[in-house]
Amino acid sequence: MQTYQEMSKEELYGIKEGLEKEYARYKGLGLALNMARGKPAPEQLDLSMPMMDVLDSSSVLQSVDGTDCRNYGELDGITEAKELMAQIAGTTPEHVLVYGNSSLNVMYDTVSRSFIHGVMGHTPWCRLEKVKFLCPVPGYDRHFSITEFFGVEMVNIPMTAEGPDMDMVERLVSTDETIKGIWCVPKYSNPQGISYSDETVRRFAALKPAAKDFRIYWDNAYAVHHLYENDQDHILDIISECEKAGNPDMVYEFFSTSKVSFSGAGVAAIASSVDNLADIKKQLGVQTIGHDKINQLRHVRYFKNINGINAHMMKQAAIMRPKFEMVEHILEEELGGLGIGNWKKPKGGYFICFEALEGCAKNIVAKAKEAGVGLTAAGAPFPYGKDEKDSVIRIAPTFPSMEELEQAAKIFVLCVKLASIEKILA
Amino acid sequence: MQTYQEMSKEELYGIKEGLEKEYARYKGLGLALNMARGKPAPEQLDLSMPMMDVLDSSSVLQSVDGTDCRNYGELDGITEAKELMAQIAGTTPEHVLVYGNSSLNVMYDTVSRSFIHGVMGHTPWCRLEKVKFLCPVPGYDRHFSITEFFGVEMVNIPMTAEGPDMDMVERLVSTDETIKGIWCVPKYSNPQGISYSDETVRRFAALKPAAKDFRIYWDNAYAVHHLYENDQDHILDIISECEKAGNPDMVYEFFSTSKVSFSGAGVAAIASSVDNLADIKKQLGVQTIGHDKINQLRHVRYFKNINGINAHMMKQAAIMRPKFEMVEHILEEELGGLGIGNWKKPKGGYFICFEALEGCAKNIVAKAKEAGVGLTAAGAPFPYGKDEKDSVIRIAPTFPSMEELEQAAKIFVLCVKLASIEKILA
Repeated sequence: MQTYQEMSKEELYGIKEGLEKEYARYKGLGLALNMARGKPAPEQLDLSMPMMDVLDSSSVLQSVDGTDCRNYGELDGITEAKELMAQIAGTTPEHVLVYGNSSLNVMYDTVSRSFIHGVMGHTPWCRLEKVKFLCPVPGYDRHFSITEFFGVEMVNIPMTAEGPDMDMVERLVSTDETIKGIWCVPKYSNPQGISYSDETVRRFAALKPAAKDFRIYWDNAYAVHHLYENDQDHILDIISECEKAGNPDMVYEFFSTSKVSFSGAGVAAIASSVDNLADIKKQLGVQTIGHDKINQLRHVRYFKNINGINAHMMKQAAIMRPKFEMVEHILEEELGGLGIGNWKKPKGGYFICFEALEGCAKNIVAKAKEAGVGLTAAGAPFPYGKDEKDSVIRIAPTFPSMEELEQAAKIFVLCVKLASIEKILA
Repeated sequence: MQTYQEMSKEELYGIKEGLEKEYARYKGLGLALNMARGKPAPEQLDLSMPMMDVLDSSSVLQSVDGTDCRNYGELDGITEAKELMAQIAGTTPEHVLVYGNSSLNVMYDTVSRSFIHGVMGHTPWCRLEKVKFLCPVPGYDRHFSITEFFGVEMVNIPMTAEGPDMDMVERLVSTDETIKGIWCVPKYSNPQGISYSDETVRRFAALKPAAKDFRIYWDNAYAVHHLYENDQDHILDIISECEKAGNPDMVYEFFSTSKVSFSGAGVAAIASSVDNLADIKKQLGVQTIGHDKINQLRHVRYFKNINGINAHMMKQAAIMRPKFEMVEHILEEELGGLGIGNWKKPKGGYFICFEALEGCAKNIVAKAKEAGVGLTAAGAPFPYGKDEKDSVIRIAPTFPSMEELEQAAKIFVLCVKLASIEKILA
């Protein structure tokens, strides 16, 4: 099979003509499809509906230690919620502080706290000339929005198949004390679906940061979000690895049940060292009296433990897997061998990361939009929205129905072909 | 009847001896009573238990406009929750942004946003030399904790029977551009139970602040928290009064259902001008994808509208009123005419504010503690915990049972008498 690059101009013009007709036809359909955000499909949410029955007016809304979950208090969450959340993160309850419904909110507040209050007695970042974060790219746009909002300078770190380029991370973190953090999605990373190797996790845990208030922002968003029952990634527990390496306070781990139970009504948490949690609680006690303990109780009574969570996630996988596989199939079928894009087959998480020819991503996204297919903005997976190569596109296959997704994927590959030919011919 | 001050030393010593015996007897009982925090009693929370039944696995968890409340989105809350919360505050839905479970969290985040991001394009407070807040005293300790945490200088403003001393507020706000805010609890104030007069509200709305980013922090915590069916305070709607006065952006109003439904699992909101809300959402969209919409839906489906809320609050009043009246009765019975304390009979809210002889509050609280009665720390209702007169004690009668409360109140008056005699004899 010939790649587009190997074809003659005439051949390409010929192909282009056919593609443009097809594209015009799609435009005529007035579609409104969306592969933009990592949202669960309604069918995934339906799986959690029995959770709405576990508490009713006859329930005793007390935690295992007798706390009235209807009243004020318990800043760090009820005992059994700490236990459940610890199991999700693969750590122990004394390392867990349970929050409200949004792990993004926990991350924002963690940066905000460091900015205003400082980290464990260190200078608040608002008083520093410069604060930098390392950002493995491509990464999660909402991470970058937080650090951008606080005026943090973001430094790109390339991703490898094993995680971030650790040589670069080690060199920068050990020499530049303005570097205060790094954003990580260690498992089924957003958007590439890469899981950090054991060596990567150990090198993270063994970092020797120049800044004493450097922290790893470990967004374990997809801790239990496998697509396959028998082909799952497992990462090392960063909390205990940091302890072993003599850096117990170096990591904040974030996670939630947003994509386990309900996306707006789950339970979020932070896991960290006991000393970090004590530092956090000093501020948190000023911010709130406590989070929603009834929702914590509802989650624990429904899922019970990690086995309940895992069984539930396999039901979700049964809904999500065919969607991923269909998109992968269409990509392979339509683009395989053409030399105009690369992608990997993720084993979990919410995204397929498509790497187009350089200079094509924006054009592809624009063309798709014109034909009624919403995609995450090109550049979004990079700090400041700047993809220097204009190449990465994040595909989110979960929310649309199979029918919509099939159509959207077909339009997507069409747009990839068109934009690639335009690029090659330009 | 003679006051303690009018009595001879001999008389006082005689009384003291009797009181000390009684005090020793109470100490011997090893009690653990608590009148410290404004927490609803379990019986009040029981009233909301039917709310646990309104949503179950057969419910369609969609808002009136079809939003799937189980999924991401709707940063400012679902339509019907905005409507319900607007009714509680006495405003209209376009002025409302619905948050999570804690109005304290909303207030903290509002100050935090101003500190980091600035108010509507004005200089972020973290870049200013000095930021001041006016604090009507006595007031709510958790307000003061927030501003103290951000390093804001707090300036005491005396309370009158009509609200804060508005002459002083007007003079300071109009001349000092470092004054960026004032903490207010306009209805059944914490701790005095004072409701601002119409004139006070109008003078607030008509303020001419030197600082363009000055805002009134209007914590309408007890908007619907009446103790009596036919003797209720009503305050003017500050939002529309500010509009009328040409200051539409000058107020942030905070409120929640924490003491309506469940104290840890209610719904909080902010009400403000459309322009303020737009400014807030720019930051909020970085912080979170949205709050818990299922809990919003649960509240609306249960309470339906302000009539549902008011009917529910009257059931709560039936539980709370006898507690307030018993404490008032014991205060009157035991301290009336002795000249050693003043208090008012609140018509709503959660507190009775006791004003002891100068220099006695700490001693009373310490004595009560020794006899097994927890009270809010003396000084707590003042910025930095400093009550210059050492006189104000906040009594929270709602949480204990009637039996516990009776005993606690009797110990309290005993401690007041003892501390007062010690003071007079000193």
